[in-house]
Amino acid sequence: MPDVPSDSPLFLGIDLGGTNVKAGVVTDDGQSLSYESVPTEAAAGPRTGMHNIFRCAELAVESSGAGWEQISAIGLATPGTMDIPAGMLLNPPNLPGWDNLPIRQMVEERLAKPTCLQNDGNAAAYGEYWVGAGRGAKSLVLWTLGTGLGGGIIVRDQIIEGENSHGSECGHIIIEFDNGRRCATGQYGTLEAYASATALLARCREQLAEHPGSRLHAMLAEDRELTPILIAEAAEQGDAFADQLIMETARYLGIGTTSVMHCINPSMFLIGGAMTFGRNETELGRRFLQRVRDEVAARGFPVPVQHTRIEYATLGGHAGYIGAAGCARQALRSGN
Amino acid sequence: MPDVPSDSPLFLGIDLGGTNVKAGVVTDDGQSLSYESVPTEAAAGPRTGMHNIFRCAELAVESSGAGWEQISAIGLATPGTMDIPAGMLLNPPNLPGWDNLPIRQMVEERLAKPTCLQNDGNAAAYGEYWVGAGRGAKSLVLWTLGTGLGGGIIVRDQIIEGENSHGSECGHIIIEFDNGRRCATGQYGTLEAYASATALLARCREQLAEHPGSRLHAMLAEDRELTPILIAEAAEQGDAFADQLIMETARYLGIGTTSVMHCINPSMFLIGGAMTFGRNETELGRRFLQRVRDEVAARGFPVPVQHTRIEYATLGGHAGYIGAAGCARQALRSGN
Repeated sequence: MPDVPSDSPLFLGIDLGGTNVKAGVVTDDGQSLSYESVPTEAAAGPRTGMHNIFRCAELAVESSGAGWEQISAIGLATPGTMDIPAGMLLNPPNLPGWDNLPIRQMVEERLAKPTCLQNDGNAAAYGEYWVGAGRGAKSLVLWTLGTGLGGGIIVRDQIIEGENSHGSECGHIIIEFDNGRRCATGQYGTLEAYASATALLARCREQLAEHPGSRLHAMLAEDRELTPILIAEAAEQGDAFADQLIMETARYLGIGTTSVMHCINPSMFLIGGAMTFGRNETELGRRFLQRVRDEVAARGFPVPVQHTRIEYATLGGHAGYIGAAGCARQALRSGN
Repeated sequence: MPDVPSDSPLFLGIDLGGTNVKAGVVTDDGQSLSYESVPTEAAAGPRTGMHNIFRCAELAVESSGAGWEQISAIGLATPGTMDIPAGMLLNPPNLPGWDNLPIRQMVEERLAKPTCLQNDGNAAAYGEYWVGAGRGAKSLVLWTLGTGLGGGIIVRDQIIEGENSHGSECGHIIIEFDNGRRCATGQYGTLEAYASATALLARCREQLAEHPGSRLHAMLAEDRELTPILIAEAAEQGDAFADQLIMETARYLGIGTTSVMHCINPSMFLIGGAMTFGRNETELGRRFLQRVRDEVAARGFPVPVQHTRIEYATLGGHAGYIGAAGCARQALRSGN
């Protein structure tokens, strides 16, 4: 990691997830000086969870080699639902019992630094925009493919956070209005209901019996758990059904990408999150990406199809805290 | 119309359509001092068409009571496709033969005023945002329901025009990916393929034979043309099939509104364009709007559903040139 600069501000980024808190100290040009992660223990409630946030923050500052006095501001990314301007969690499904928590104020008071709150998907998008795969782009949309399907939209350095902190929820656009699949939030026909990891597993379970020759039967008979990784492993071993399930996911993501492209026409789309099939490192990951691109090319207007880049995100699990730090930097600069 | 102010800048807005050119002189606070319209004669080619644009512009300045020297800048709205930063028409389907026309430069040179180019849907959205039904909103999305289905997105005074001038093409989001209907641009399953006037007529023709009791049969037997107005007339006379066709249009528009709401989370959606069923002036128009709202309420996240207003636009055919004038004003202020 780089040395601590002596003459420019530092920012602490915190990414609160349902499972882990991540935090790191980030320089004014987006370099990470440290990275720490501790379990959130979300189910134990906000008292325990806040303790873990503060502990992770302290570890991150300590391991960065910087002093607390060098931290100019803090950016905090959390899962929704939330009220960003008010700095409040509302009723986040991933943080049960953390309802109506004035989390920004709690961090600001305890750590004694100006703090800004941001949605975790938006923060990750901002991180990729600032110093990740989107560096130099004028605008981008990030998909975060995981249990759910999140997103973040950045246009000319501004996060499309929406008037009620519900912007960039692009996983909840509707791609099939009639007889659509149902997603975890109970909505029908949403992109998330087709392209998330949850949807991949559901589609697999529904269709597995129709594919008696699939390797997945033998793998599951060995008491292995059905996960996207298992399906990817089968696909990489040449299992046609597993491959089809994954390429269908890419197709759905391409459909959603086309819709969002026709709204925003960003410079690029990035695909991040836990379910990216090895990205460009594997043949499967490369085919997945190409399948997304092909679907967009088949469905979109020629001009944006020609110009819109579609790539994998590169910051991985670091995008959230780095982006949160970037939001803190932006807020400090604009005087908010 | 208001008097010509002596101490504040004036702007000329021009709205170039496939059928008519509209122009008006607009004050610094968005009041229209004049309004003129002349046929575009688009099919006669750009030479004739440009002549008509200049004639309309001159009529508008003349009838405003202002002198040309009082006009600070010109805003020109045109149908796409276009390259907004370059000021070029690319190959607009509604202006056949006007390909690759440096239209901004042509207006700027002839009328000797700083000129900005904007997409007509974006300009109309900006007009509504500036002085129409969206006045005071922080962000809005305008639907223009007509032969096609256009749109415009404004977030905090910025038009989402996209990196390749293809932003805000929200009529081309995909709402049914499998076996979707086809729209005029050849794309399948787009919102336009379901909710435009063209789609309404297509659905009517397809289903009419299944509804032998519909009044539409008698109306068409009188050699009346099948138009959205005819269908609306039948619906207003109590024809269940005609009413169903129109309410299905509202339902589709509600589905598309939900998707865009989940991307942008704007303060409000406005419904404008030629096919608005009498807006709030008729019982049919009020039911249409309510049906859109109901669909959004059934499908959207609770927080944005609760806060997002859905209304009719109010500037009608004036939105485009007023919005174009507003864009000219904004460009002048920002020094672009």
